[in-house]
Amino acid sequence: MDRGEYRLRRKIENFDPIDDVGLDEEIETRVPTLGAAKIISPLSRNFSHFISDDERVLLRLSASVLAQRLASGKQPLSFEFAGPRERIYFDPAKARAAIVTCGGLCPGINDVIRAIVMALHYGYRIRSTIGIRFGLQGFIPGYGLPVMDLTPRVVESIHELGGTILGSSRGPQDIDEIVDAMERLDISMLFLIGGDGTFKAGQKIADEVRNRGLRKSIVAIPKTIDNDIYLVSKTFGFDTAVEMACQAIRCAHTEAVGCPNGIGLVKVMGRHSGFIAAAATNALREVNYCLIPESDFDLEGENGLLRDLERRLAARGHAVIVVAEGAGQRYVTGKRREHDPSGNIKLGDIGLFLRDTFKGYFAGKNITSFVRYIDPSYIIRSVPANIDDSLYCANLGQNAVHAAMAGKTAMMISHWNDRYVHVPIVAATKRSKKVNLNSRFWHSVLECTGQSSLQNS
Amino acid sequence: MDRGEYRLRRKIENFDPIDDVGLDEEIETRVPTLGAAKIISPLSRNFSHFISDDERVLLRLSASVLAQRLASGKQPLSFEFAGPRERIYFDPAKARAAIVTCGGLCPGINDVIRAIVMALHYGYRIRSTIGIRFGLQGFIPGYGLPVMDLTPRVVESIHELGGTILGSSRGPQDIDEIVDAMERLDISMLFLIGGDGTFKAGQKIADEVRNRGLRKSIVAIPKTIDNDIYLVSKTFGFDTAVEMACQAIRCAHTEAVGCPNGIGLVKVMGRHSGFIAAAATNALREVNYCLIPESDFDLEGENGLLRDLERRLAARGHAVIVVAEGAGQRYVTGKRREHDPSGNIKLGDIGLFLRDTFKGYFAGKNITSFVRYIDPSYIIRSVPANIDDSLYCANLGQNAVHAAMAGKTAMMISHWNDRYVHVPIVAATKRSKKVNLNSRFWHSVLECTGQSSLQNS
Amino acid sequence: MDRGEYRLRRKIENFDPIDDVGLDEEIETRVPTLGAAKIISPLSRNFSHFISDDERVLLRLSASVLAQRLASGKQPLSFEFAGPRERIYFDPAKARAAIVTCGGLCPGINDVIRAIVMALHYGYRIRSTIGIRFGLQGFIPGYGLPVMDLTPRVVESIHELGGTILGSSRGPQDIDEIVDAMERLDISMLFLIGGDGTFKAGQKIADEVRNRGLRKSIVAIPKTIDNDIYLVSKTFGFDTAVEMACQAIRCAHTEAVGCPNGIGLVKVMGRHSGFIAAAATNALREVNYCLIPESDFDLEGENGLLRDLERRLAARGHAVIVVAEGAGQRYVTGKRREHDPSGNIKLGDIGLFLRDTFKGYFAGKNITSFVRYIDPSYIIRSVPANIDDSLYCANLGQNAVHAAMAGKTAMMISHWNDRYVHVPIVAATKRSKKVNLNSRFWHSVLECTGQSSLQNS
Amino acid sequence: MDRGEYRLRRKIENFDPIDDVGLDEEIETRVPTLGAAKIISPLSRNFSHFISDDERVLLRLSASVLAQRLASGKQPLSFEFAGPRERIYFDPAKARAAIVTCGGLCPGINDVIRAIVMALHYGYRIRSTIGIRFGLQGFIPGYGLPVMDLTPRVVESIHELGGTILGSSRGPQDIDEIVDAMERLDISMLFLIGGDGTFKAGQKIADEVRNRGLRKSIVAIPKTIDNDIYLVSKTFGFDTAVEMACQAIRCAHTEAVGCPNGIGLVKVMGRHSGFIAAAATNALREVNYCLIPESDFDLEGENGLLRDLERRLAARGHAVIVVAEGAGQRYVTGKRREHDPSGNIKLGDIGLFLRDTFKGYFAGKNITSFVRYIDPSYIIRSVPANIDDSLYCANLGQNAVHAAMAGKTAMMISHWNDRYVHVPIVAATKRSKKVNLNSRFWHSVLECTGQSSLQNS
Repeated sequence: MDRGEYRLRRKIENFDPIDDVGLDEEIETRVPTLGAAKIISPLSRNFSHFISDDERVLLRLSASVLAQRLASGKQPLSFEFAGPRERIYFDPAKARAAIVTCGGLCPGINDVIRAIVMALHYGYRIRSTIGIRFGLQGFIPGYGLPVMDLTPRVVESIHELGGTILGSSRGPQDIDEIVDAMERLDISMLFLIGGDGTFKAGQKIADEVRNRGLRKSIVAIPKTIDNDIYLVSKTFGFDTAVEMACQAIRCAHTEAVGCPNGIGLVKVMGRHSGFIAAAATNALREVNYCLIPESDFDLEGENGLLRDLERRLAARGHAVIVVAEGAGQRYVTGKRREHDPSGNIKLGDIGLFLRDTFKGYFAGKNITSFVRYIDPSYIIRSVPANIDDSLYCANLGQNAVHAAMAGKTAMMISHWNDRYVHVPIVAATKRSKKVNLNSRFWHSVLECTGQSSLQNS
Repeated sequence: MDRGEYRLRRKIENFDPIDDVGLDEEIETRVPTLGAAKIISPLSRNFSHFISDDERVLLRLSASVLAQRLASGKQPLSFEFAGPRERIYFDPAKARAAIVTCGGLCPGINDVIRAIVMALHYGYRIRSTIGIRFGLQGFIPGYGLPVMDLTPRVVESIHELGGTILGSSRGPQDIDEIVDAMERLDISMLFLIGGDGTFKAGQKIADEVRNRGLRKSIVAIPKTIDNDIYLVSKTFGFDTAVEMACQAIRCAHTEAVGCPNGIGLVKVMGRHSGFIAAAATNALREVNYCLIPESDFDLEGENGLLRDLERRLAARGHAVIVVAEGAGQRYVTGKRREHDPSGNIKLGDIGLFLRDTFKGYFAGKNITSFVRYIDPSYIIRSVPANIDDSLYCANLGQNAVHAAMAGKTAMMISHWNDRYVHVPIVAATKRSKKVNLNSRFWHSVLECTGQSSLQNS
Repeated sequence: MDRGEYRLRRKIENFDPIDDVGLDEEIETRVPTLGAAKIISPLSRNFSHFISDDERVLLRLSASVLAQRLASGKQPLSFEFAGPRERIYFDPAKARAAIVTCGGLCPGINDVIRAIVMALHYGYRIRSTIGIRFGLQGFIPGYGLPVMDLTPRVVESIHELGGTILGSSRGPQDIDEIVDAMERLDISMLFLIGGDGTFKAGQKIADEVRNRGLRKSIVAIPKTIDNDIYLVSKTFGFDTAVEMACQAIRCAHTEAVGCPNGIGLVKVMGRHSGFIAAAATNALREVNYCLIPESDFDLEGENGLLRDLERRLAARGHAVIVVAEGAGQRYVTGKRREHDPSGNIKLGDIGLFLRDTFKGYFAGKNITSFVRYIDPSYIIRSVPANIDDSLYCANLGQNAVHAAMAGKTAMMISHWNDRYVHVPIVAATKRSKKVNLNSRFWHSVLECTGQSSLQNS
Repeated sequence: MDRGEYRLRRKIENFDPIDDVGLDEEIETRVPTLGAAKIISPLSRNFSHFISDDERVLLRLSASVLAQRLASGKQPLSFEFAGPRERIYFDPAKARAAIVTCGGLCPGINDVIRAIVMALHYGYRIRSTIGIRFGLQGFIPGYGLPVMDLTPRVVESIHELGGTILGSSRGPQDIDEIVDAMERLDISMLFLIGGDGTFKAGQKIADEVRNRGLRKSIVAIPKTIDNDIYLVSKTFGFDTAVEMACQAIRCAHTEAVGCPNGIGLVKVMGRHSGFIAAAATNALREVNYCLIPESDFDLEGENGLLRDLERRLAARGHAVIVVAEGAGQRYVTGKRREHDPSGNIKLGDIGLFLRDTFKGYFAGKNITSFVRYIDPSYIIRSVPANIDDSLYCANLGQNAVHAAMAGKTAMMISHWNDRYVHVPIVAATKRSKKVNLNSRFWHSVLECTGQSSLQNS
């Protein structure tokens, strides 16, 4: 078979296939603190296995990268290891915590909220934790939103529910007003559950807190259904999202084989990154084409998707295609790019476009075929977390509490190389994460779909 | 509150609220047979609880309807009770069976196939059962489709899979060619899994079989995701479809309460009947508007959907709307009605229409709102059957085998008043089933949504 | 094969195979009322489809049974049809409702509670509904249990959780103290969610209420995981229980085929009736022996279970056995029968007994075999309701509210012949329901397992 | 509260909390090979992202451990990175592969089989892959077991089923006979899916292959429901097992809160390690006591489990306890230890013991309490893999094929520090993995249960 080969189009210098993400050479790894932690942790009543700030987790896993770095006289990069500190910064008897959830929904938000409340209450004996309603809007007096008292009783069953009991909203709010509200509400620790935009707000809040000479900890928990936050191996809710994507793909496969020349087409979330599409493809192994924003594809031409799909139908009688919503945008975006209120470019609907294009193509060739299009849309993100995500969220929430109590600030809790670590927000917001086309992760997709480059040149 | 009342718009004569379907006065209840059943059933080796043709199940349950009928000198209508007969028509040593699946997918088709094969093989010792591929096309030589040998080993695990292992197709095929193929393949019993169109083809096949002086049994198992076959309480797969619809509605509800003025909008299957929408609404009790084809609604005006939704948002801050795909077609169908190859009218997309209409309406009023639209589409019908449907399918398949072996023909296996019965195809195809707006089923929807008539007049 | 035949052991007179339950000749069908219902229902603001007390649902479905009865000059038995009445007994502005849950857990209790609260609040505008904690104990001052205020907000998400938010308890309490408490708490309507014992308490409460000249409605909603309440087609939670039983059976089957001569053995709930075992067997069709309390079996002898199992292993290499906990008690109960506090006989553990007996038998014969024993125990009853049960529970709760508001009392809401009806408690408690060995339901089990009588005589 | 504190009982030297497993100082990391790989991989027709043997993944993540090691002049330990090699050892046109599954079932075995078959067939164009039936027995002529032809069609849907389509068995078989059979069957590559015992057999097979001067690759895929294989972060199926354990724990929690003084007790798998119990506890956060083999507990005494449980009931009215089957064996094992055929010590039933002990204790104190005991047993391991495990299994199978094709042998595919690596069997079988009581993993359990040491001394 003489299909377009999926070769690297340019020579890769210093290619590190063990690096799934494509890491930058230099990354800020120092976590800001509010000051010296002097108070003995209440946790010490029960156990004595505390983590020192000196415990650090290596960032990169390649032995040869390490050797190179050492050879050039540099120390290997490492992140602070998460966990309870023997000495804490805040006085549990006096500190008050707040939780806010921003941006789109994601499975597991309630699990994170619950874990934070439980760890504050039962671990550190913090007596008051409040929930800010509807994202950062909840801080702003103009919206008139009351806060919510978060007790263990209030949160005990919320992990069984999707979404966030606090509500959420998008878009920035005035930083001054937020810090004013934090002062009024006497919030010592703010837990921000959100994505890139929220992180940037978190950094500004931390800066303003410092500028005002206040002592308030800002700890972020990374949340994005697209799994595209830099320096986080996998964001919470992602496993559940993949599970739901797989439900849709299974159905598309069932439909495709259930009729002659059936084409199952599934659109999944992924604005700028194709992680959900790729992971679901890898998991189910019954996808024939996985289209993601990171990898361009031609429609026309001998190696284009349409001809390839035609060959597939002729050979096997059915096909399954998974497309991330941000893939193939050059086919669906007009010249004038529209933006939504938060500044995101409005995406064209590649799913409907492909559905109609496939129908037209095969009708034009007088080939009977049936396109079964499934767009699970919000189903992917609004379901409750599965157990893997529940466990992950619980650990994130718990470690966020340890970090905040220890006086860490302007940081996010991350999971990196299978360990929980502290990452400065400035590092995490440096850029977004994308599917690394040179990684084994993506190559597994190519292996199990058998798809060619889908490019003519 | 002075909302449009949901009153009957015309006086109902002889209204019978116990009748969920709106039954016709006269229904043909006699099932055709191929001739006298004389062979002792192989089942008698194991037990002796056979059903006589004299066992009949009353059609209508209302005591007053019965009294009226008796008073007018008529006998009450009843269906033949399904089950194994002591004497069978076909010689198990010689008979051969075929199964064909037609039309759209539905959860549980594989369960029915499996139950038929198992009952034929283990119960009646029928040694050959074949599967016809891709619906009625599989009979037609021109398509060149091989048949599939259906042994217990082939079918043992297929109930774990959605769809149909036989494949399916839509549209009519030449009756003569079908009966020719049945003769060539020496098929004594044909099990048709399909809907209204398939039933009509089944009747014609049975007629042609009789005209040719052949002895072949045609037994239909009613299949439609929309639950709109007359004289069937509930079609198989319906429970599973409702379960999947509820998954989508749960997500829509989660999204709606997760942001300020969230509107969760879900479109579910239901071309001419709103059973899925209504049952899911009743089950979850978190839907505020349930829109179905049987019940017209106004968009504009004081009692129209838009104003009502606006009032709902003002009062409660969120709303959940479920719409059957066939609802509100007057808003989305052009003057010239298009048809698909099988003669079905192409529906306009009421889901996308409502999504955009809601957005426009609230934008026009400067009310911030977020419409979260979910169209689970094929997910509803392509998943494997849940246990309720598995049990139902198993019983349908098993009873279909009993009927065919006893020489019954031109009939469908149905479930009526919680019993399995034999219904002549001519009765089942008399008309389609719709949600009876006078039934308790629909009134429960009105009670739990609290929705008004949504009509101005 | 010359296995013990599954024949009727005695001649059946007037055998009615359409009657799944084995109904008594005479059943009390008149529902007590508190008095004339004179107040116009608040529901009439929204719709006008009310149910008259004259609407009645036939009890028996057999046309021949009907003919016999008419011939003997008797009227056919019928139950009152459930649904909202145009005139109600209680003044919504003044009435107060209470809900209590008794006995063992069951999937869907929370759904029923939620539906009752919603229907009272949104439908009838009842402003106060309270929950009694931990069953009838909650009425008794000695236990010091506070009541729980049940608002729509409290109950809105409880259907996602298994169990009962009210807690439950077993055993009787003093009727006088209960009615005293109802007077103190000013309860007009008491909704009892429970089983046979609870129903009897409900009848006594209704009697005492009448003796005191009070006007309080007692409406029961039948709850039993074993599905053994007379005059209820199927109790709520039963479908979910079967689903969970099937999960265990699937695993047992997987284990059985995963090793040479594997025997998968599953014990499921069912103290005096084998409904769960039988329905799960019918649904999955991969069970070879279904053992229930209603059908005795021999272990030893040529037709006994052990020899039969040995033959099965020799022929097929694996076997799956489902046993209801109440089956085969003669093998596991000593001479002196112990009772638990509620007066129930303590059952011997037939599951562990069979496991050990199988192991011993095959070891004794030097046949390598592996017994994989699964006892899902409470998993079957503590999970949240599936959607079918949610829908069922919602309808039960809603109709219970209609009945209570109309002044009906000493009755249960039931589902009979696929319709919701009112059944007097005296009729429902006349006896318990068992699997009718002459019914199609049980015969389907025999057909799909192929099991013989397992009896030597 | 003055409960027994959970302190380290001895001073920890060189404590590395980042090391979850408790790694040995020296680990063999060199993977044996059959010889030079010279053939160009067929994968190169589609892409060119091959992995060199020089790519290696660091074993330990602690920056300070690394610094120490470097300071002492040693190189950091690292594993070979898994993935396709540009040059392979076997000629795809001639090589034949075999798959065998040994030991107990585990979710995902079929996924691994499917991935291996798919990767061999579609990736490397290997035309024949066979399945060995019922574990190593399938090699031994004396058992008379036929092999199974594994084509893509045979395996395409098996991931939807639990268990293994090949069947499995326990215990060793004669190594000579196995290698004889491999010669007769002309097997170039043997994929062993099994645990510790299987690995040791695999090593012996590889040794015998080498002794005979043959060129056959032996690649193991680690399988154990207990997650106790050394040098594997997490074994496949573990996530699914935790999910099922959580189902049981949820039910136990529901039961515990559903009655006064309810004690929910769940026994889960874990003979020598408590990973399932601990992970489920962490995920759900509604467990109060997590008992594992690695952490002894007292029953009696002021700090013993019974007194602590009594205090818990008095304070909160309910409790949930999860116990791994291997925990507390000193209470249930007699003096003479029995062994099963494979040489495993027969465990006493700690679940039943605790159930009865709790009942007796509270009865003796006249405290009304209800113990709800759930032993999900095989349910935990016989269900199909969830999506996370499916993805994991697919990657394991695919990478095992890459390794075998490249001529690697006597190795297992592992996942370590979130990367797929090659680990020599000799290293993997050095010891078994246990819950490290000094790890953050276990400390999270202590944090979220709040349990004390449960020890008096």
